[in-house]
Amino acid sequence: MHPLAGLLNPDDVITDPAAMAPYLIDWRGRFTGAAAAVMRPRTTEAVATILRWATQTGTPIVPQGGNTGLSGGATPDASGRAVVLSLEHLDRIRAVDPVGNTLIAEAGCILTTVQEAAASAGRQFPVSLGSEGSCRIGGLVATNAGGINVIRHGMTRDLVLGLEYVTAAGEIVRGPKRLRKNNAGYDLRHLLVGSEGTLAVITAAALRIVRPPPARGSALAALASPDDALRLLSALREAVGEEILAFELMCAAEMDLVRARFPQARYPFAHPHAWYVFTEIGGESEGTVSARLEATLGDAIEAGTVVNAVIAASEAQARAIWYLRFAVSEANRLAGPTASHDVSVATEDVPALIARVTARLGAEFTAARPLFVGHVGDGNIHVNVLFPDTDALAAQGAAVNAAVYALACDLGGSISAEHGIGRLKPVTFARIADPAELRLMRQIKQAFDPAGILNPGAVFAAPDTSFPS
Amino acid sequence: MHPLAGLLNPDDVITDPAAMAPYLIDWRGRFTGAAAAVMRPRTTEAVATILRWATQTGTPIVPQGGNTGLSGGATPDASGRAVVLSLEHLDRIRAVDPVGNTLIAEAGCILTTVQEAAASAGRQFPVSLGSEGSCRIGGLVATNAGGINVIRHGMTRDLVLGLEYVTAAGEIVRGPKRLRKNNAGYDLRHLLVGSEGTLAVITAAALRIVRPPPARGSALAALASPDDALRLLSALREAVGEEILAFELMCAAEMDLVRARFPQARYPFAHPHAWYVFTEIGGESEGTVSARLEATLGDAIEAGTVVNAVIAASEAQARAIWYLRFAVSEANRLAGPTASHDVSVATEDVPALIARVTARLGAEFTAARPLFVGHVGDGNIHVNVLFPDTDALAAQGAAVNAAVYALACDLGGSISAEHGIGRLKPVTFARIADPAELRLMRQIKQAFDPAGILNPGAVFAAPDTSFPS
Repeated sequence: MHPLAGLLNPDDVITDPAAMAPYLIDWRGRFTGAAAAVMRPRTTEAVATILRWATQTGTPIVPQGGNTGLSGGATPDASGRAVVLSLEHLDRIRAVDPVGNTLIAEAGCILTTVQEAAASAGRQFPVSLGSEGSCRIGGLVATNAGGINVIRHGMTRDLVLGLEYVTAAGEIVRGPKRLRKNNAGYDLRHLLVGSEGTLAVITAAALRIVRPPPARGSALAALASPDDALRLLSALREAVGEEILAFELMCAAEMDLVRARFPQARYPFAHPHAWYVFTEIGGESEGTVSARLEATLGDAIEAGTVVNAVIAASEAQARAIWYLRFAVSEANRLAGPTASHDVSVATEDVPALIARVTARLGAEFTAARPLFVGHVGDGNIHVNVLFPDTDALAAQGAAVNAAVYALACDLGGSISAEHGIGRLKPVTFARIADPAELRLMRQIKQAFDPAGILNPGAVFAAPDTSFPS
Repeated sequence: MHPLAGLLNPDDVITDPAAMAPYLIDWRGRFTGAAAAVMRPRTTEAVATILRWATQTGTPIVPQGGNTGLSGGATPDASGRAVVLSLEHLDRIRAVDPVGNTLIAEAGCILTTVQEAAASAGRQFPVSLGSEGSCRIGGLVATNAGGINVIRHGMTRDLVLGLEYVTAAGEIVRGPKRLRKNNAGYDLRHLLVGSEGTLAVITAAALRIVRPPPARGSALAALASPDDALRLLSALREAVGEEILAFELMCAAEMDLVRARFPQARYPFAHPHAWYVFTEIGGESEGTVSARLEATLGDAIEAGTVVNAVIAASEAQARAIWYLRFAVSEANRLAGPTASHDVSVATEDVPALIARVTARLGAEFTAARPLFVGHVGDGNIHVNVLFPDTDALAAQGAAVNAAVYALACDLGGSISAEHGIGRLKPVTFARIADPAELRLMRQIKQAFDPAGILNPGAVFAAPDTSFPS
C-alpha cells in the first residue's frame, strides 16, 4: 500500500500497473513514462496534503487533467519515482453568475461541462477545441489553451479572472477571486496560467463568460494564396468588426489528406483549390449574418480575392463545413510520421512564413511535405511536415524542426503559439529564448518550487531529462 | 555635472532644482520627494546604460511616465539619492498594422497620440481615462491602467501583446513581439504589466487595436438603488451583448458635488435622484444604437428599474452627459480632505458593498461622508470619503480606510482595483495580501532586481520607507 493511501480514499490512489497505464502515455503516443502511483484527490485540502508530503519526501509530482496535451507536459519520466496527480475528481461547478458574467469551475471539470453550465445561464464559455469532450479546465488553464475562437475572445488566459491553487509546499491560496479588476501587487494569476504545472497546482478557476451572439453563420472560401486570406480577413473586419468568431486557413494538401482519410466528409466544391479559409461570424440576427457573409464574399469574388465560396444555409451545413477543419488532428495522426510545429508570427507575416518554409523545405528536404493549417487571424500556423517513413523522420526531423523554428524566429515569432513547451521542446526553447528572460523564468521556478518537485522535465531543459527534445 | 551627464545628451539630464520640481511631486499633491537628477533618455540603449550604472552604484531609480498616477508610484523618497528616469523622450509610434490590429508605441507616447495613431488607420486603442492627454503608455502599462471602457475591452494588460524592456542589470529584452499567441515559457509580460516600475523598465509595448463600432450612443439614467443598476446592466446585456462600452454608477451626493463645482455642467433632469448610471453602447448604425437604448430604457422605466432617463441625440449631448462623469476627479480634488478607496468586488456584490460601507460609516464615523462613483459593470467602486476638515481626516482617516478595506475584503474583493499600490498602500497591502502570495511576490522582486534599485518603496512595505501608508 502506498504511504499516502491512508490520507486519501483508497479508490483515489492507483498503484496497479494496468490501471495506471492510461495516465502514463500522452494522447499522441509520443511519451510513455512510469509512476509510483496515480493520486486522484477530491478536495483542495487533499491536494495540499499530497504536496506537503511530496516536498518533504522529494517526490516528483506530475499534475494531469484530461491528458489531452500535445507536448507531453503531463507524462512522468521513465524512472517510476513520480506521482501523477490527477485532478479529475475535483470536478464541481461552484458558481455561475450571469450578471457579472463569471463562472467558477474546479480544475477537473471537463470543458464541455463548463460550456453547458454557461449555456444553462444563457451564456457561453468561448474556448472551443478538438478535445473539448475530454480536456479539463485545470489543464486548459495550466497550458493556456487556444483553439478556434481565439480571434474573438483570446486565449484561455484572457478568460481567467482568478485562481485557487496549492503551492509546492502545500499552502492553499484560497479563491478563486471573481474580480475583473485587481491591481494589488504582481499578477501571479497570469504567471500560473501557461506554467504547465511547474509552479503550483491549480485547483479552481474563476472564468469569464459572455453572452453568445444571437446568430452565427459559417462559410468556406477557396483562395489562390495566403495573401488573399489576409485580404479577406481585412474585408471581413471592416464588415463585422470584432464579431469574427473564427478565421482558419488550410492548404490544398491538408484538405486532400482529410478527404482521403474521411471520405464521408462533404467537400463542397467541384474542383480542388490551392487554399481554403473557414470562417464563422456572429451577429444580432440570421438575416444580418447571412447578408454580411454574402456581401463580403461576393465583393471578394468580384475583386479576385476569393475564387469560390459556400455559405452554410443551415446548422447541418455549418457542421459539415467545420467537420473538414476539425478532422485535421486525426487525419494528421493517421497520416504517418510527422514533425509538427505550432508556430506564430504577426498576422501580416503569415504569408512570408508560409512562403519561406515552403521554399526551404523544397530546397533542402525534398522527401518532407509541409502541410499548413491554422488560426491565421491570430498569426498561428501549424506546420505539419509529413515524412514518407520513420527512417526519413529520424534522419531529417531534427533538421526540419530547426529550419522551421529558425524561420519563425527570424520573423519575430514564437516556437510555441498554443501547445506549450512540455517535454517536447525544452531544449529548443532553451536555445531560442532570450537569455535574460530564461534566467528570470528559472529564478521564478526556484522561488515557487525550491525542492523542484513540480513537473520536473517540463518547460526547462535539464541534463537528466529522460526524453529527447 | 552629474556623472552620467556625459553618457546622455546634456539636455537629457536635469539637476536644477526648479526644473526638477514637477517630477518630484505627484498629481494629487500627496507625495513630494527629492532626487539627485532627472534623466530623460532618448533610446532603449540609453535606458540600459543608466540601469547598468544604477546597479553598479546602488542608485535608486524611479521610472516615471506622465506623472499622473494616483498612488504615488512615480515619486522618489525624500532622501535625494534617487534618479527619476523619465521615459518622456522615448515617444515614437514604431508601427501600426490594421490587418493584424496591432500598434507598437514607445513608453513615452502620450495616450492621445496612440489613440490618434490608431484612428488614422481606422482603428481604436480602447483605453480611455481622465488623464489621457498627459499620461504615457509606459505608465499605463506599468500600472495596468483601467478607465471607463474596461467593461468592453478589459484593462490595459488585456491590450498588451508584448513588451520591450530593460532589466535592473541593464540587459535589453528586445521586442516588443506583436504575437497574439505565444506559449513559450512563463508569461513575463503580464508580470511586468502592473508591476509599477519595480521589476524592470518598460521601453516599448505592442498593443492590440480594434475596429471601433460604426455608431455609438450614450444615455444617463436615474435610478433608486445600486440593485436597479445591476438590473439595468442585465437588461442592456441581453439587448446588446458585448457592445456595452461603458456602464458607470454615481451617487446623488457625488452628482451634487459636481454640479456645485461645475455650474456650467448641464444636469438634464428636473429633480435630483438617488443614483445615476452613465452608459455608452456601440452598434452597426445610429439607428440600431438609439433604437436599442430607447427600447431597453423604455422597458426599464416600465418595469420600475429606472426612474427617468435621457438619451443623447447628438455628439454634443453625449459630451454634455459624460462631462458630468469626467468632472468627478477634479470635483473631488477641490472638495476638501478626502480618503479615497479604489476597491473592487464581484459585480453582483456591488450593492452589498455600498450598503455595508454606508451603514458602517454612518454608525461609526458620523462626520465622514462617503461618495460612490465607479465602474459598476467591472465591480470597481471608488469610495471617496469626504471629511469636514484636515483635523477630522487626520483623526479618522486611518480607521475609515481600515473599515472600507475590511468590508471589501470580506466580500472577496481587492483594495486596489485599478490605481495600484504605489507608495500609498504598501502597508495595507502587506497586511491584507495572502502570505504565500506576498512571499512569492517578494521573491520575484528579488529575482528581477537583486540590488533593489528599481522604485524602492513602491508596492512593498519596507521599514525604511519615508512615507506613511
